[in-house]
Amino acid sequence: MKIALDAMGGDFSPQNPVAGAVQALRDFPDIELILVGDEEKIRAELCKHNTAGIESRLSFHHASQVVDMTDNGLDSVRRKKDSSISRAVDLVKDGQAAAVVSAGHTGALVAAATIKLRTLPGIDRAGLGVLIPAEGGVFLLIDGGANIDPSPKHIVGFAVMGSVYYQAVVGGNRARVGLLNIGTEPGKGTEFCLQCHELLQSAPIAFAGNVEGHGIFKKPVEVVVCDGFTGNIFLKTIEGLAKSMVGWIKDELKKSPIRMAGALLSKGAFDAVKARTSTDEYGGTPLLGVNGICIKAHGNSSVPALRNAIRAARTAIEQNINTRIVEAMQPLHEKVPARHPAEA
Amino acid sequence: MKIALDAMGGDFSPQNPVAGAVQALRDFPDIELILVGDEEKIRAELCKHNTAGIESRLSFHHASQVVDMTDNGLDSVRRKKDSSISRAVDLVKDGQAAAVVSAGHTGALVAAATIKLRTLPGIDRAGLGVLIPAEGGVFLLIDGGANIDPSPKHIVGFAVMGSVYYQAVVGGNRARVGLLNIGTEPGKGTEFCLQCHELLQSAPIAFAGNVEGHGIFKKPVEVVVCDGFTGNIFLKTIEGLAKSMVGWIKDELKKSPIRMAGALLSKGAFDAVKARTSTDEYGGTPLLGVNGICIKAHGNSSVPALRNAIRAARTAIEQNINTRIVEAMQPLHEKVPARHPAEA
Repeated sequence: MKIALDAMGGDFSPQNPVAGAVQALRDFPDIELILVGDEEKIRAELCKHNTAGIESRLSFHHASQVVDMTDNGLDSVRRKKDSSISRAVDLVKDGQAAAVVSAGHTGALVAAATIKLRTLPGIDRAGLGVLIPAEGGVFLLIDGGANIDPSPKHIVGFAVMGSVYYQAVVGGNRARVGLLNIGTEPGKGTEFCLQCHELLQSAPIAFAGNVEGHGIFKKPVEVVVCDGFTGNIFLKTIEGLAKSMVGWIKDELKKSPIRMAGALLSKGAFDAVKARTSTDEYGGTPLLGVNGICIKAHGNSSVPALRNAIRAARTAIEQNINTRIVEAMQPLHEKVPARHPAEA
Repeated sequence: MKIALDAMGGDFSPQNPVAGAVQALRDFPDIELILVGDEEKIRAELCKHNTAGIESRLSFHHASQVVDMTDNGLDSVRRKKDSSISRAVDLVKDGQAAAVVSAGHTGALVAAATIKLRTLPGIDRAGLGVLIPAEGGVFLLIDGGANIDPSPKHIVGFAVMGSVYYQAVVGGNRARVGLLNIGTEPGKGTEFCLQCHELLQSAPIAFAGNVEGHGIFKKPVEVVVCDGFTGNIFLKTIEGLAKSMVGWIKDELKKSPIRMAGALLSKGAFDAVKARTSTDEYGGTPLLGVNGICIKAHGNSSVPALRNAIRAARTAIEQNINTRIVEAMQPLHEKVPARHPAEA
């Protein structure tokens, strides 16, 4: 299977994407990678690695432009036609790659994928599905920010896509779905929440009702749905708080030699929690609903995070995610009253 | 100054409210407390404490009902007219108390205070202002959930009220205000965010633009404004994550004797972080904008948290918060084109 990697995307490019690519090619012998971006720079970076034995599964696709963080996502698709993001998506559109992976500008990737690949049959809006560590496993939050103003019907689509992805990638036969809200009772929340709650109850998913932020990390459900504005606030907030808490603990530990000695002895515990809350392990966020596999890696992705984002693309291809999503959406369309047999 | 305390509100009532009241009366000789609720139960609880020297500043106001967590906030005001929350608010309305403090049902307190006390002149909606620990101090988030569907104009009111409260209670001459959003650029967010951003720019506050969840704990601003839905999701999420992270660290520390020894040595550091992130210290959330001082304590408030909620009421009275809010709102009303002098 061929995967297009945006080698110029992310805070540490082309270093980390190139190193992640080398790692992924070693670990997954069934993949081929197309490195998209400034070919000269990518080749120069690649020289730092030993590529013996993997060279044959590595190719290049030149792109002269890079989407900057100051660019507007939607505009970039029109104005920077030769960006590494756009070109990588083009490879999927043209059937030269089965998936695209990028650590670049989220808005640009979402816009390029939505415009060029379009959405799957039966899906109106794509959503970012983010795996988040919790007690006893992970849960998937969708939408992490692709659509800040969806309709309740789009939320139902997110619920179906999230369930399919969770079961295919994380496992289990049944993914419970919760609606992120400000109370667990069905009558809670905005008018939008009430409408979502009603539609989700009759959707072909295992709907478990509303979930709240203070219970969510105990993993009462496998999939959490919400609009992209709320989802994005949620993601950035937990990222900010987790980092600050770790920073506060470190500051306090430095305040006395005894505390520092204690910290040294208990280091293993902190490393374990750090690994558990690290986004590296789940270093790939699928844009679910577009007609092609599209994986977003975090802008500050480490080498292992990029390797794992490529792994996420590989799994999604292997698991036929998009076919399964289209099938899972089927019951929703069948609900539309069929025409009278005589009319057919 | 007289403060009405809902002695039946919260998860541990009447124990914690009564113990918090005794503590507050000892610590603040200038306050008088009216304990509102089932008088027999409150008196029985009070017997467990030494009230010598504070008895004269303690009185009772019987209320036969209690708002349960299963009650609807708004309904409770109509159906449970003799609830401890409603009766405590009545005391403020009737001028028998200068402030009300309750650890009970948030929705019931917001509804009772808004209906019975009404809003301040120039204020259309009240908002919950929650102090949140961050690097180098605290910031105030408003609205924490009083209004899930406010207009951009209400957000401006939250910004003004939050600034006044922050300066009066936490200190400083200038409270910078940030709009909680999904990007720092002015063009980011929903249509609602764009409208808020525009209005905030010309409001009589120190507007610092948009703030994001992952930067917020570094305290780029003193006041963060948002709608009550987003604010409530934010608050519950940080509460849930902080608890889970502490739990994960504890679990990992228990996994080996060496780690446990290390944990013992570095315990001071964790206690310090725990104290820093504890809501006890800021155990009182003002409902800003109602015509009377109204302080909500967390449902699971400890005794010190309740004592501090009473302290928050005392400070708000002392600082003439409401007069200052009305004054601070003045420039906004003056902006409305005045009638021609000849018409006056």
